[in-house]
Amino acid sequence: MSDPWELCMDHCLRVTKDAGTVIREALKKEVSVMQKSSPVDLVTETDQRVEALIISSIREKYPTHSFIGEESVAAGAPSVLTDNPTWIIDPIDGTTNFVHRFPFVSISIGFAVNKQLEFGVVYSCIEDKMYTARKGRGAFCNGAPITVSGQKEITKSLILTEIGFKENPDHFKAMMSNVERILTIPVHGIRCPGSAAVNMCLVACGSADAYYHIGIHCWDMAGGAIIVTEAGGVVMDVTGGPFDLMSRRLITASSREVAQRISQELQVFPCGRDDTDS
Amino acid sequence: MSDPWELCMDHCLRVTKDAGTVIREALKKEVSVMQKSSPVDLVTETDQRVEALIISSIREKYPTHSFIGEESVAAGAPSVLTDNPTWIIDPIDGTTNFVHRFPFVSISIGFAVNKQLEFGVVYSCIEDKMYTARKGRGAFCNGAPITVSGQKEITKSLILTEIGFKENPDHFKAMMSNVERILTIPVHGIRCPGSAAVNMCLVACGSADAYYHIGIHCWDMAGGAIIVTEAGGVVMDVTGGPFDLMSRRLITASSREVAQRISQELQVFPCGRDDTDS
Repeated sequence: MSDPWELCMDHCLRVTKDAGTVIREALKKEVSVMQKSSPVDLVTETDQRVEALIISSIREKYPTHSFIGEESVAAGAPSVLTDNPTWIIDPIDGTTNFVHRFPFVSISIGFAVNKQLEFGVVYSCIEDKMYTARKGRGAFCNGAPITVSGQKEITKSLILTEIGFKENPDHFKAMMSNVERILTIPVHGIRCPGSAAVNMCLVACGSADAYYHIGIHCWDMAGGAIIVTEAGGVVMDVTGGPFDLMSRRLITASSREVAQRISQELQVFPCGRDDTDS
Repeated sequence: MSDPWELCMDHCLRVTKDAGTVIREALKKEVSVMQKSSPVDLVTETDQRVEALIISSIREKYPTHSFIGEESVAAGAPSVLTDNPTWIIDPIDGTTNFVHRFPFVSISIGFAVNKQLEFGVVYSCIEDKMYTARKGRGAFCNGAPITVSGQKEITKSLILTEIGFKENPDHFKAMMSNVERILTIPVHGIRCPGSAAVNMCLVACGSADAYYHIGIHCWDMAGGAIIVTEAGGVVMDVTGGPFDLMSRRLITASSREVAQRISQELQVFPCGRDDTDS
């Protein structure tokens, strides 16, 4: 039997390449910025235009499929994962980086059926790196196979996370305290590149050993999650429990040992869920 | 009158390209790691080999010149800036990144005469970006002119810094508190790429608006300092006073306004000087 989702993945690659061209062109021009929920939550005309381009192209070919897109959700669309074939899309992951032309800006698309991820595509536009993975068939960067570092020792690990202002002082304090605790283990270092999907791909290709994030969204994770697992890595909840795409919480790592060691240090603070909170 | 240091700069470019080839070749192989002062202070055989390669090539051509090199200083050589023409060299800036193949790894060379920087070269090896600047003649990336963003508003700025473990609990606390204070201004975000010289070049080309660091070394700054000033940016001390190459302290920014606003937030902790402390 042929792979039922192979044609979908081919189409996903085509539309991602087209969207990448739009983003690279936009990077050459002055970027006009709008605020979303707060002064540190930015959106641009390009985010919205690229998401519309991706969804309309896929919808035309697959009219019965469902969509969860960052900008559609921001505009009021529901964000619930059903058993229906569902495309989970971040048109520009790293919008702040995009605004500043900081070199990690990506398109992230994950495709789930029966709530299980079937394939993922993450295109790092400025680096021109196309990361892809199909369930059971490995992970690739620009067509070449990639694997995680395989590192099992936390003290030899390079860790990725994001540090940002949080309105709730307790959450802000917990986030900062988590950074301090991870550094104190000690680890080789912490890096903050600013694109969740790229972070996951950096773990997938062995350039970092782990990435953790409380407050991430499903559209940041869907593409990267299957790429990192197909590259031999693990994804889990920040408590050490099973990964939940809608939970807004993630540890991904080169090994179960490193992921679990990180989960022991993290102080978890509430961040809501993608499928129940507005 | 012809530029007295033009031939030196030409030679610097040649030797940097040669060293870049060595580093890119080394990145393809397994990297063997040694510890320097602590478990998080790493050095590799490549750092030492590249520094020896650079210094021997320059010394052969300019036998009367002086050198300050990261690995030579680690091995006991003095680190004092005199009026003599002096090459200030970091063979691999971002050694931890190099060990992990995290994409910001650079060679940094600054050249000073009468304690004033005359030219700088920073080569970001994985990105294949050669940043250069000659005093009074502007800054370039791969031959194309670059300028800072010109941003004057701190709340619209993307800020770079480094976060790492510090043995002294008070210094560690001050470093973390500085991150918290900067985020609270608020700013667009904080990024931690892990190579000081690349950070300075990211400010120089407008991909970030500022970079601050307490505990940096002269070999991390010398190449980047003239690149960022020739690109229209400012360098200053973390107190807001004049930049001092040997002070181990730096704010560099797209504008005096942004640099000064950062200096108001920073809690300064002692980190010694490059020219008086062993």
